[in-house]
Amino acid sequence: MILPKTNRLTNDQLAEITRIVEAFGCRIQPIVGAVRTIYAIVGDERDDLMITRLEGLNYIERIDKIQSPFKLMDKRSDLASHTIQLGGVKLGEELLVVAGQCTIDPKNPNLLYETAAAVKEAGAHVLRGGVWKPRTNPYAFQGDSKSLDILMEAHRRTGLPVDAEVMDENQLKLALDAGVHMLQVGARNALNYSLLRAIGKAVTDRPTVVLLKRSLHMGPINEFLSAAEYIASFGNPNILLCPRGTAPTLDGYRNHPDESITPLLKERTWAPVVVDPSHSVGKAVYVPACALAAVAYGADGLCIEAHVQPTKGIGDDPKQAITPDVLAETISQARQLWALTHAARVEARQ
Amino acid sequence: MILPKTNRLTNDQLAEITRIVEAFGCRIQPIVGAVRTIYAIVGDERDDLMITRLEGLNYIERIDKIQSPFKLMDKRSDLASHTIQLGGVKLGEELLVVAGQCTIDPKNPNLLYETAAAVKEAGAHVLRGGVWKPRTNPYAFQGDSKSLDILMEAHRRTGLPVDAEVMDENQLKLALDAGVHMLQVGARNALNYSLLRAIGKAVTDRPTVVLLKRSLHMGPINEFLSAAEYIASFGNPNILLCPRGTAPTLDGYRNHPDESITPLLKERTWAPVVVDPSHSVGKAVYVPACALAAVAYGADGLCIEAHVQPTKGIGDDPKQAITPDVLAETISQARQLWALTHAARVEARQ
Amino acid sequence: MILPKTNRLTNDQLAEITRIVEAFGCRIQPIVGAVRTIYAIVGDERDDLMITRLEGLNYIERIDKIQSPFKLMDKRSDLASHTIQLGGVKLGEELLVVAGQCTIDPKNPNLLYETAAAVKEAGAHVLRGGVWKPRTNPYAFQGDSKSLDILMEAHRRTGLPVDAEVMDENQLKLALDAGVHMLQVGARNALNYSLLRAIGKAVTDRPTVVLLKRSLHMGPINEFLSAAEYIASFGNPNILLCPRGTAPTLDGYRNHPDESITPLLKERTWAPVVVDPSHSVGKAVYVPACALAAVAYGADGLCIEAHVQPTKGIGDDPKQAITPDVLAETISQARQLWALTHAARVEARQ
Amino acid sequence: MILPKTNRLTNDQLAEITRIVEAFGCRIQPIVGAVRTIYAIVGDERDDLMITRLEGLNYIERIDKIQSPFKLMDKRSDLASHTIQLGGVKLGEELLVVAGQCTIDPKNPNLLYETAAAVKEAGAHVLRGGVWKPRTNPYAFQGDSKSLDILMEAHRRTGLPVDAEVMDENQLKLALDAGVHMLQVGARNALNYSLLRAIGKAVTDRPTVVLLKRSLHMGPINEFLSAAEYIASFGNPNILLCPRGTAPTLDGYRNHPDESITPLLKERTWAPVVVDPSHSVGKAVYVPACALAAVAYGADGLCIEAHVQPTKGIGDDPKQAITPDVLAETISQARQLWALTHAARVEARQ
Repeated sequence: MILPKTNRLTNDQLAEITRIVEAFGCRIQPIVGAVRTIYAIVGDERDDLMITRLEGLNYIERIDKIQSPFKLMDKRSDLASHTIQLGGVKLGEELLVVAGQCTIDPKNPNLLYETAAAVKEAGAHVLRGGVWKPRTNPYAFQGDSKSLDILMEAHRRTGLPVDAEVMDENQLKLALDAGVHMLQVGARNALNYSLLRAIGKAVTDRPTVVLLKRSLHMGPINEFLSAAEYIASFGNPNILLCPRGTAPTLDGYRNHPDESITPLLKERTWAPVVVDPSHSVGKAVYVPACALAAVAYGADGLCIEAHVQPTKGIGDDPKQAITPDVLAETISQARQLWALTHAARVEARQ
Repeated sequence: MILPKTNRLTNDQLAEITRIVEAFGCRIQPIVGAVRTIYAIVGDERDDLMITRLEGLNYIERIDKIQSPFKLMDKRSDLASHTIQLGGVKLGEELLVVAGQCTIDPKNPNLLYETAAAVKEAGAHVLRGGVWKPRTNPYAFQGDSKSLDILMEAHRRTGLPVDAEVMDENQLKLALDAGVHMLQVGARNALNYSLLRAIGKAVTDRPTVVLLKRSLHMGPINEFLSAAEYIASFGNPNILLCPRGTAPTLDGYRNHPDESITPLLKERTWAPVVVDPSHSVGKAVYVPACALAAVAYGADGLCIEAHVQPTKGIGDDPKQAITPDVLAETISQARQLWALTHAARVEARQ
Repeated sequence: MILPKTNRLTNDQLAEITRIVEAFGCRIQPIVGAVRTIYAIVGDERDDLMITRLEGLNYIERIDKIQSPFKLMDKRSDLASHTIQLGGVKLGEELLVVAGQCTIDPKNPNLLYETAAAVKEAGAHVLRGGVWKPRTNPYAFQGDSKSLDILMEAHRRTGLPVDAEVMDENQLKLALDAGVHMLQVGARNALNYSLLRAIGKAVTDRPTVVLLKRSLHMGPINEFLSAAEYIASFGNPNILLCPRGTAPTLDGYRNHPDESITPLLKERTWAPVVVDPSHSVGKAVYVPACALAAVAYGADGLCIEAHVQPTKGIGDDPKQAITPDVLAETISQARQLWALTHAARVEARQ
Repeated sequence: MILPKTNRLTNDQLAEITRIVEAFGCRIQPIVGAVRTIYAIVGDERDDLMITRLEGLNYIERIDKIQSPFKLMDKRSDLASHTIQLGGVKLGEELLVVAGQCTIDPKNPNLLYETAAAVKEAGAHVLRGGVWKPRTNPYAFQGDSKSLDILMEAHRRTGLPVDAEVMDENQLKLALDAGVHMLQVGARNALNYSLLRAIGKAVTDRPTVVLLKRSLHMGPINEFLSAAEYIASFGNPNILLCPRGTAPTLDGYRNHPDESITPLLKERTWAPVVVDPSHSVGKAVYVPACALAAVAYGADGLCIEAHVQPTKGIGDDPKQAITPDVLAETISQARQLWALTHAARVEARQ
């Protein structure tokens, strides 16, 4: 990683550096952080001659050589000072709450509008609404692009930024063109590197946040962080890591709750952790306890399925969406627990 | 299960009932609860003629026929009103804290005495101290009966009731003779039915509490409750269920934390759940978060390894014991979280 | 599923049927089998009126209503008589062997040409050669389109049909344009439904076989079969199911060998099972035993990594590729085991 | 480990060595092998002074210092040349087959006598018959000491050595007194170190073989070998390691078949591996394939549940016992596979 003396390289400087690294089979990737831009050398950067030549440039402050399959996501990376903001929340300073429907029903847009207003009232910062859905059954409802308009309308009515899952490049383009604020990568695509790369590249004129769910298997932590690195190394550092339960399941739950992975992630990466208790447990009645457990383990945010009338929902909502009043109570308890533990935890880290 | 009209059957009544059930290949087992004694029919109780004959006795109020491999532990059982008390705590009314050393070092009794005083000061209700230890390595220190004296001396000095793991009938006898208040069944013996039966039978003149750890595998919940039923069906209903992490492990933890099983247990059984965060995560730094997560999931108590000087400990203590000040802070946060969630949870159940 | 009286519907008949089903929100999908073409109704086909109208058409023999998330892959489906052929092997009649390199090294095309000749000599029917590779580390070699030419050249030199993994629609198009005979969907994309759909649709003028690997988690069997259904329901029934080990791993293996799933798959589906022992165990020395175990469980084929000089390989080859002589011996033993068990197994099924 | 110059130490020599090692807090344990007796130093044997003093004795040939939690079971141990024999089979030279009922029905002894004759006819070398059974349900039939007489009568009638599971010291004594030839430690007691120790100590005037099942969880290999070491280090080296499936299960099987662990075990230990396919898969129809897979992975023997009339069986037999004709065919195929692979495997090791 190259740190220039200024906040950003000039075009000429960037062109010069590009010529140097390309001669060694690498490319240069600017990563625009909240405060400054850093420049990742993508490829095998270990050639001493290349480093020597770069270090010789007078506008370079320092070159960091982190040996890691996730050198940008690494806690020791210069990206570690990068702050992600969404819905008025600076991640790490306040508990972020994403809430909304698993799946938007294009025949009942009002259900989403009512849900949006209700989750805002309950304290959520971002509205979740599934437009396209990965369904195990190929004959089940797969979502509908019409729902994208409904989602953006809900944004206009409430002011809440919105989140939608994308599963391929076509959906990615549609979502970004519509103005979706947070892109979600689902568990089934968590290791779909072509998609991760496309998302990383899809830099628009505003920062887009990516909620990267953990893969379905109890995979190693480095695999999770390397998946995030795919996105970052193509230009987008606004990544939230989302444990959401692993399979196969404990009897009684949809998945095996894995909020306990949070402290292990935080030992290695600076990226915020936003836990999804809804998919972890898969049944509304267990969601509040799982949400609190996530905060107990140090999560920076929660992604919860909520619905004004769960039984009228489609997708997973009839089973796992909680009602706005339960959401409000859960957010209230979660914030109190955050307040209770946060001071102590921050101190222990120093 | 037979419920007599009086709190307890007379000897003559018991003898009459015994004659009836033995004719059908069953036996009768009194289970002495806090308020009343119930009488379990052990064996295949489904013979209608036997039930008819028992129902004809004028001192019988009712016969409950619960079809379950854990009919005593079942939430619908008459034992459900049974309350377990230990160290001045009524389980369910206040968060129980068991704390102390993994393994007592017979060469350094003062370490236990100091630890005992310190965990009492930090707010623990019961002193844990490993006398005999199941060790993977057959050449490692296996514990020593001398440590039993040390444990009882710590009890005398602090007034705290004490807990020790027993692995066979010989250790069981020694522990009960010495006056140990809580017997622990470890994960490796969690399905050792001969031992569970012996513990169930070993009724003394005072109630002995049993802390039954969950087996190492991610086994079905009914298997856990059936193991508890072995103990109860031989006469001892004072059972605390203890999730302690399952294997194999998430990378970074000793075991796979399983405090999330708590709500699933509580749906089926009346027995209190006391989570062991120390073995779940296996490293001191993660213990406080795991303890809070257990309370978030509704645990009735915590069993935590603590040591005045962890690095001087033996067994697992150097790795996973927390110091008394961290214990005090953890107990304080856990109690606040308990207060925060308890009212709401009790309400949701009604 | 609609079975016409003739082997194939005329264009007029297809147009008429299309009008009917579209009126009920469904679409019609021809699936070209080895003997006849069947026509799947995709969408919610349970509307009685639609069925009645279709049954009234005089060129329709029968309409099958299988209630299953994988009605085409189901053993009871009319596709069950479909036979897949590749490399001169009719699946089910002879053990299919796919062998070759994990990753083609574009700098050393001769290594692939030599490997191709050697695996053909050893008895393999299809040449495997990784062109593009999903790599956990974003900075590792990701494959190169140049390798596609090398792979096709190996096909021209040996006559072996060739297999390559594709990870997105762009690679899919390149592979089909080049003439690749077997498309591989890797474990990380096993539930990437957008990709599965694209592969299903990509019908060319010749049959393309799809090797669908099992997802990394120990997921339910129906999830695996539903993933195959995505491909079939968009037009391509030539699907081979490929268990390849699940994660996390037993200590000592790369993954948890799962060839034992074969009999469970065969109870539900007609699709052939081709086991990948190389990724299951992840180390060359264990591959032959795992290959035989797969045949013991009834596998129809094997997909094995082999290399003339494993230590010169890239990707996984240095660790898990076996040499051609070990491959020849493994194929020989596997065929003898197939002969030993096949007669008996076929009989037991009848 | 102490290797004397003679096959066996004299009483005086043993007494002298005992005095030396006891001075260092150790004890000496003779392990009677098929050819010679070796003498294990149990305790912390790393004291140089102790080793020096022992090496000074003129009747000592050599002292082996293997640093391992399973130094006797280790492949590099002097026990590695020890050969276990049972039912006329030298383990390693011929495939051992243990077969018989899960649970003996004391009300129907003839079923066992007929099963015994039938499994002998089918080619089995040892008769399995459950006398006492660990049952998840405390109210289910737990076995009966009467069955021990039935088992020994089956031995007298057929000449087959017999195998029975023991769960505590009382059962151990009864089984040894009756003359049982092979003691089985079940999965639930696989880490019950008190029982393992008692079995190791219970040396009788004839060699007793121990079939040690793997624990229910997917535990590390060293844990399995250390459990075996408990038995060996108290005097009995006749140990067969028995993978039997781990929990939780793949859908469709009772457990997760784990015969694939065989090569990993054989890399570390000299002890023979005898796989139990019956509990691995839990359903008769899958047992033959699993048995063959075990041989494919290099198992030295099989332990199979078989019954002349499975539907009349008790315990697991109605579900998982195969009939004698299926057993005969399975044994025949297993022997052919053994012949096919054995020569090659032995060669590869040299």
